[in-house]
Amino acid sequence: MNFASDNVTPVCPEIQAAIDAQCQGNAPAYGGDDVSATLDHAFSELFDHEVAVIPVSTGTAANCISLSTLVSPYGGIVCHHEAHINEDESTAVAHFTGGAKLLPMDGPAAKLEAATLSSYLESRVDRGVHSVTPECVAITQSTELGGVYSKAEIAAIGDVCQQFNKKLFMDGARFANAVAALECHPADITWKAGVNALSFGATKNGALAVEAIILFDTSLRQKAELARKRSGHLLSKHRYLAAQLAAYIQDDLWLKNARNANEAAKALAALLSEQGGKLLIDGAANELFISLPPETAARLRDRGLIFHNWPSLGSNAYRFVTAWNSDIEAIMALGTRLKQG
Amino acid sequence: MNFASDNVTPVCPEIQAAIDAQCQGNAPAYGGDDVSATLDHAFSELFDHEVAVIPVSTGTAANCISLSTLVSPYGGIVCHHEAHINEDESTAVAHFTGGAKLLPMDGPAAKLEAATLSSYLESRVDRGVHSVTPECVAITQSTELGGVYSKAEIAAIGDVCQQFNKKLFMDGARFANAVAALECHPADITWKAGVNALSFGATKNGALAVEAIILFDTSLRQKAELARKRSGHLLSKHRYLAAQLAAYIQDDLWLKNARNANEAAKALAALLSEQGGKLLIDGAANELFISLPPETAARLRDRGLIFHNWPSLGSNAYRFVTAWNSDIEAIMALGTRLKQG
Amino acid sequence: MNFASDNVTPVCPEIQAAIDAQCQGNAPAYGGDDVSATLDHAFSELFDHEVAVIPVSTGTAANCISLSTLVSPYGGIVCHHEAHINEDESTAVAHFTGGAKLLPMDGPAAKLEAATLSSYLESRVDRGVHSVTPECVAITQSTELGGVYSKAEIAAIGDVCQQFNKKLFMDGARFANAVAALECHPADITWKAGVNALSFGATKNGALAVEAIILFDTSLRQKAELARKRSGHLLSKHRYLAAQLAAYIQDDLWLKNARNANEAAKALAALLSEQGGKLLIDGAANELFISLPPETAARLRDRGLIFHNWPSLGSNAYRFVTAWNSDIEAIMALGTRLKQG
Amino acid sequence: MNFASDNVTPVCPEIQAAIDAQCQGNAPAYGGDDVSATLDHAFSELFDHEVAVIPVSTGTAANCISLSTLVSPYGGIVCHHEAHINEDESTAVAHFTGGAKLLPMDGPAAKLEAATLSSYLESRVDRGVHSVTPECVAITQSTELGGVYSKAEIAAIGDVCQQFNKKLFMDGARFANAVAALECHPADITWKAGVNALSFGATKNGALAVEAIILFDTSLRQKAELARKRSGHLLSKHRYLAAQLAAYIQDDLWLKNARNANEAAKALAALLSEQGGKLLIDGAANELFISLPPETAARLRDRGLIFHNWPSLGSNAYRFVTAWNSDIEAIMALGTRLKQG
Repeated sequence: MNFASDNVTPVCPEIQAAIDAQCQGNAPAYGGDDVSATLDHAFSELFDHEVAVIPVSTGTAANCISLSTLVSPYGGIVCHHEAHINEDESTAVAHFTGGAKLLPMDGPAAKLEAATLSSYLESRVDRGVHSVTPECVAITQSTELGGVYSKAEIAAIGDVCQQFNKKLFMDGARFANAVAALECHPADITWKAGVNALSFGATKNGALAVEAIILFDTSLRQKAELARKRSGHLLSKHRYLAAQLAAYIQDDLWLKNARNANEAAKALAALLSEQGGKLLIDGAANELFISLPPETAARLRDRGLIFHNWPSLGSNAYRFVTAWNSDIEAIMALGTRLKQG
Repeated sequence: MNFASDNVTPVCPEIQAAIDAQCQGNAPAYGGDDVSATLDHAFSELFDHEVAVIPVSTGTAANCISLSTLVSPYGGIVCHHEAHINEDESTAVAHFTGGAKLLPMDGPAAKLEAATLSSYLESRVDRGVHSVTPECVAITQSTELGGVYSKAEIAAIGDVCQQFNKKLFMDGARFANAVAALECHPADITWKAGVNALSFGATKNGALAVEAIILFDTSLRQKAELARKRSGHLLSKHRYLAAQLAAYIQDDLWLKNARNANEAAKALAALLSEQGGKLLIDGAANELFISLPPETAARLRDRGLIFHNWPSLGSNAYRFVTAWNSDIEAIMALGTRLKQG
Repeated sequence: MNFASDNVTPVCPEIQAAIDAQCQGNAPAYGGDDVSATLDHAFSELFDHEVAVIPVSTGTAANCISLSTLVSPYGGIVCHHEAHINEDESTAVAHFTGGAKLLPMDGPAAKLEAATLSSYLESRVDRGVHSVTPECVAITQSTELGGVYSKAEIAAIGDVCQQFNKKLFMDGARFANAVAALECHPADITWKAGVNALSFGATKNGALAVEAIILFDTSLRQKAELARKRSGHLLSKHRYLAAQLAAYIQDDLWLKNARNANEAAKALAALLSEQGGKLLIDGAANELFISLPPETAARLRDRGLIFHNWPSLGSNAYRFVTAWNSDIEAIMALGTRLKQG
Repeated sequence: MNFASDNVTPVCPEIQAAIDAQCQGNAPAYGGDDVSATLDHAFSELFDHEVAVIPVSTGTAANCISLSTLVSPYGGIVCHHEAHINEDESTAVAHFTGGAKLLPMDGPAAKLEAATLSSYLESRVDRGVHSVTPECVAITQSTELGGVYSKAEIAAIGDVCQQFNKKLFMDGARFANAVAALECHPADITWKAGVNALSFGATKNGALAVEAIILFDTSLRQKAELARKRSGHLLSKHRYLAAQLAAYIQDDLWLKNARNANEAAKALAALLSEQGGKLLIDGAANELFISLPPETAARLRDRGLIFHNWPSLGSNAYRFVTAWNSDIEAIMALGTRLKQG
């Protein structure tokens, strides 16, 4: 059982089938094909709002192309210091935006809090061209520490952004897990809450390699497409990106996959708690940050479980990530066996 | 029959099978998997030289990441004015290199000629920091106009590069077609001729979306990997890139596919000549640039052939591109029918 | 007599006096001083149009900051291949604009011609995100080869720009020489002809180191100021830039200086023609490109004249640049002596 | 009495004379003149080490060009969060370096501490291409909060840099004030302590607009000169930069000026303490950060003193900056008057 990350998973059967279905016959390149043509409409339906959809192969590309449409090269992007864009994407944000600066903040479970954000923006003295003006706030849903923003929390952040005239970007590499956890409509935690652009992740949740840039302001489309091309992210056989995305949202596959991951996380959390584990973050999605007695961690690894130490949360801290293909019954069976010693 | 481009083709069966084979079970992300681990060795064997292999999803990424390891932000890149990097990749070169400048030249069939290149480099007055110093020469094999450099031609360019202390880069989006046409060893037209880095294309020739950056100087690996990450081109499920590449070079699939494309081009050229066509470029690979009587072009389109007008070569000029899946028998059968009127 | 360039000259007395006048007493930094406060008004009067004035220390900064307000990182800038931004500013344009591409053209005396420009823009096929879209046209007045655009010529270029919806930028490193040669109002060859931004040069014509970015669209001011700061071109003791500029336009000093340079060029041209020289460019400003018998060139150098060979115009081609401090009487006296043998 | 900043000051008489001396006669441009030719030697003498000197007009340019020679576009720069490069130079660092990231730390008086730095570098987990690798440490001497590193403190930081293989950069916008305060040889707190490059400030301390990039590793010269040109910081009339610098270091003018500023700060500190002020930072150079009873601050402003509130240090915090032209006798006379009520 591999809980190292959700990107260790293979492609899920439905998306594999969609890719295979594209392996017959020719089709126009660069998005001129029939499947690519359906995406804007399909996602507009999904979000109950007109959107522009720009598929790319990686989360870094989705995040940074999105940000490059929202901020100037002179601007700042407020984010949590644990944010993927701040900690895990090298210098990609500066590269794509032409130099914009990340302005990291703190907050529980890697979440920004509206009140803290408001204070920060309030207190930030504008020293004209000398200082960097925050132009955008970036949040992650669900967060890098497994936190899930509630509808109200995002709406509150959206209100602060509106009040201070900042754009709001959401890194949704695990957006599906958040929606599944909240049992909400995707609109509730995006455009209705003030989100301007979203990285709608699919790779970790069953796709081969595709993330959709969702622009709730469709006037940003051209800029995003230009940025995609010049950064080498426009695939010639674009239909293979489109096919993954189309299959991913058909019949709520994205939510089905995410629910399995979330439920597996719950089952695993129960198992680990029984073994003396103590949750470090109150997460609701598919990542567990937990402290374990070292001997327990060792025993689990002996049983074949793969998971990471997470030293930034303490010396006995570990991370377990479940996924669309986590075998819940096997987790529960293991729990039973462990209880029986 | 679709001759619009070779990127209208689907994934070929062998590569599809390799992708499908990765759709079972988990595997480490970001290149930590078993297939990714084989690439350096496999390509070193293929090229008979130790190489570093960096897979990415697009030709633009392969070209521009390669170039970013070879030139400084202050440097120049000599290329043909028809080069893909000059004409078809937006401002990607400047974006990836931090500002390096393309210095376009002329030459037949979109090929640079060693003598002209030498004169150009000789005549270019070095005005210190004011002018841009060429640091790299970039050639395309086969070229954007279907030209194929002979071994001797590339070696001569390599000599000029060595004499003037310039790096030599090869855009090999259609490298397979060139090798198949020349019936040479891939080493003969790359490192043995002085090529420092190569974009080894696979997408147009049967893959889903993968091109391999081949670094003949392995000390460039770290820079290339850093550039890949910050530009969002490091795929988490890296094994899917690796699996495509591994299948692509196994049992000479890449050459088998390219040979079909090249032979289809020959068959198509014969057909078009019989219909009054006149080849505009003496190509040997899978692209035909041909002038046709307009009524012939119309008649072919009525028969369902898809191909582009190519106004830069004249008002009656057209481009036909064949591919790994072009049906040579069908082309010949069509030829027969056309002759019969 | 030094005709190597007009930037070999010292500061002229009036501007030296203005600098010295600032060497008493403290004053607010970064443009908060009294002299800086006068610039917008003074230049608006000069141009008979509301302008934003952004002083910087060099022509490269003035040109590139201006361009960065007019083009996107994905855009193209049409210019003459002899343009300073293309030939003499390293990779500065890409650096300041975030990657915009220069699209060089030909034309006599380093001037663009409206008809050729129109054909070029007309013929340029828009291939969407793949190709670079020209967003701006850049001309130099007077040109790098001493050419001077007439009012009608610039107006015609401005019309083409308007027709094709392109911005128009003017590099006016030697703007004063052009205005003096044309005996026109500065408005006639700038905003009235469609120019959006101008580098108004002063350094070559008597200043220590200052060029004014003149924005005829004052809404570009903030972007220009942000670009100036981040590129390190906002001087803390800004009053010293402002004082130079204020003195430069007071009592038409800029035109007085330019007229001396232009008249000196005429006197020098007469002298050189008498010595067998043949003007290669029909210039009207302060640069002469002339072919000379080699022995004449040698003789002049023996007499202490300093000037450059100009091999791009031929093996016997030379450039002579006159300036605000060229001694016309001395030139004429030399002419007399040379005629006397 | 203006204590708003040291950049409100005019040019000092000696440097004014040096500028005026260049206002006669022509001289080669772009550093080809006689004065420019003396700089490398003069500064090598001053630092008792072979150096390359690259003069520019602003501190931002000096800092960022220096950093661009020390770090890659993928790298990180550790600095104090109060550092000028972090707080006061917009997004210049990313602009000049092509995307390098600032990694801010804390420390007293805006100083980094060797032990904290060592812990930081030690604890920073290397996650390969995903994370940003610190390549350089940047310190300011004297600091933005008036702190002065002792020789031992800098040497300790230099040792940490050597141990972790990081470059060490010093922003010396107020380097003269630090050397004057420490009464040390400039070598002691630069190359002898491991500093690789230094911004040697002159503008705040009596020059018009010049800072010297001092490269203790002269192999960095070419990169710095290329970066200077492309960023528009190579002045054509370079002799005016050179003349300022030559005069600035002749006969220890730079130290004479700095000593006046430092002594004025001491006199002012005494005055303010007598008026109920409490120093917030234990500075030794020319900046005072002090808390004052609000009514005292108001009274001083009534007397014509100009100084800034400094809210980041508290609601009653103020900054006073003295300079080369501060009138110490006048400060003492004011102190006397104030004591007399």
